[in-house]
Amino acid sequence: MKVVVIGASGTIGRAVVAQLAQRHDIIEVGSKSGQFQADIRSLDSVHALFDRVGKVDAVVVTAGKPHLGPLSDMTPEQFGVGLHSKLMGQVHVALAAQHHLNDGGSITLTSGIDTDEPLRYLVNATVVNSAVDGFARAAAIELPRGLRINVVSPSVLQESMEAYGPYFVGFEPVPAARVALAYARSVDGLQTGQVYRVW
Amino acid sequence: MKVVVIGASGTIGRAVVAQLAQRHDIIEVGSKSGQFQADIRSLDSVHALFDRVGKVDAVVVTAGKPHLGPLSDMTPEQFGVGLHSKLMGQVHVALAAQHHLNDGGSITLTSGIDTDEPLRYLVNATVVNSAVDGFARAAAIELPRGLRINVVSPSVLQESMEAYGPYFVGFEPVPAARVALAYARSVDGLQTGQVYRVW
Repeated sequence: MKVVVIGASGTIGRAVVAQLAQRHDIIEVGSKSGQFQADIRSLDSVHALFDRVGKVDAVVVTAGKPHLGPLSDMTPEQFGVGLHSKLMGQVHVALAAQHHLNDGGSITLTSGIDTDEPLRYLVNATVVNSAVDGFARAAAIELPRGLRINVVSPSVLQESMEAYGPYFVGFEPVPAARVALAYARSVDGLQTGQVYRVW
Repeated sequence: MKVVVIGASGTIGRAVVAQLAQRHDIIEVGSKSGQFQADIRSLDSVHALFDRVGKVDAVVVTAGKPHLGPLSDMTPEQFGVGLHSKLMGQVHVALAAQHHLNDGGSITLTSGIDTDEPLRYLVNATVVNSAVDGFARAAAIELPRGLRINVVSPSVLQESMEAYGPYFVGFEPVPAARVALAYARSVDGLQTGQVYRVW
């Protein structure tokens, strides 16, 4: 299969590329790195990416970051950070991908454990990740031509404990390689509308 | 209690006012009607509302509409309709209300059954309502001074079957008066971080 990985240079992205490259042809996409560049905050940029890449069998997104900070003085602009990058960025990819995927192709997005486990300072993450999970549930029933869509919802990564460990006290970190298996289940499998929790 | 109902002229809003007015002083707010006006798409407008109304004990929002339409040709702008009105509108109210509520006060927001039951043409609604439910789960643990936040997630209203019935074939419509009871549970009760499903 021909698989586009958007966010290929990130911690999860690299593990997904390593996992999927064992069986598939990978096209690595980044905002600044990779074989192709795209800014997923713009639908036009995503369409331009697919115009250059051509038809593919699977699209994986491991990009987009929410705002971390206290609710007490959060501004609408801070709240919008996650909505524009991690939510609308992934929605843009799905809106474009539905027209560029081969029949039976798949879209795999990324949310996070804070959907189900609210944590201090992660209100924007919970909102964005809840919305991404909801998007996959809803889009799955409308996509034509056997197209599928799933979400991987990882816990905090072992590799990211230095940066994010303080937010996730008491949570078992997971290695990125284990998270990558869930993307493989989505890409190589047949399920749709699923949230694969890796906790 | 002094209770602000934003969206007081809508089908749910009128039922909520009728239900809560049996025990509380109600301040009705609308975008164009009511005792006070506010545009919840603007945080400044919401702050200005609270500056005029003064300290209150509960805030209820029954306003905001998602975009209805097929995923196949949905634009980012259409997708943003629900994000700006029903999601960010309600987030704006909560961000402002946390500074204008008396100790132990409550915020009650509105989502919808499509969070859990994806339906044709309702992808924007599922995303927005999933995000609103997530917001309440996350905000509940951060709010200070015993402030509480809950969401009411209604099925299609009996009173709205003419407009929305075709989207909800096979669903049991609920009377707005029954939905209003869930808002009363939130305002008069002690729970927080809950999603009250009225199906």
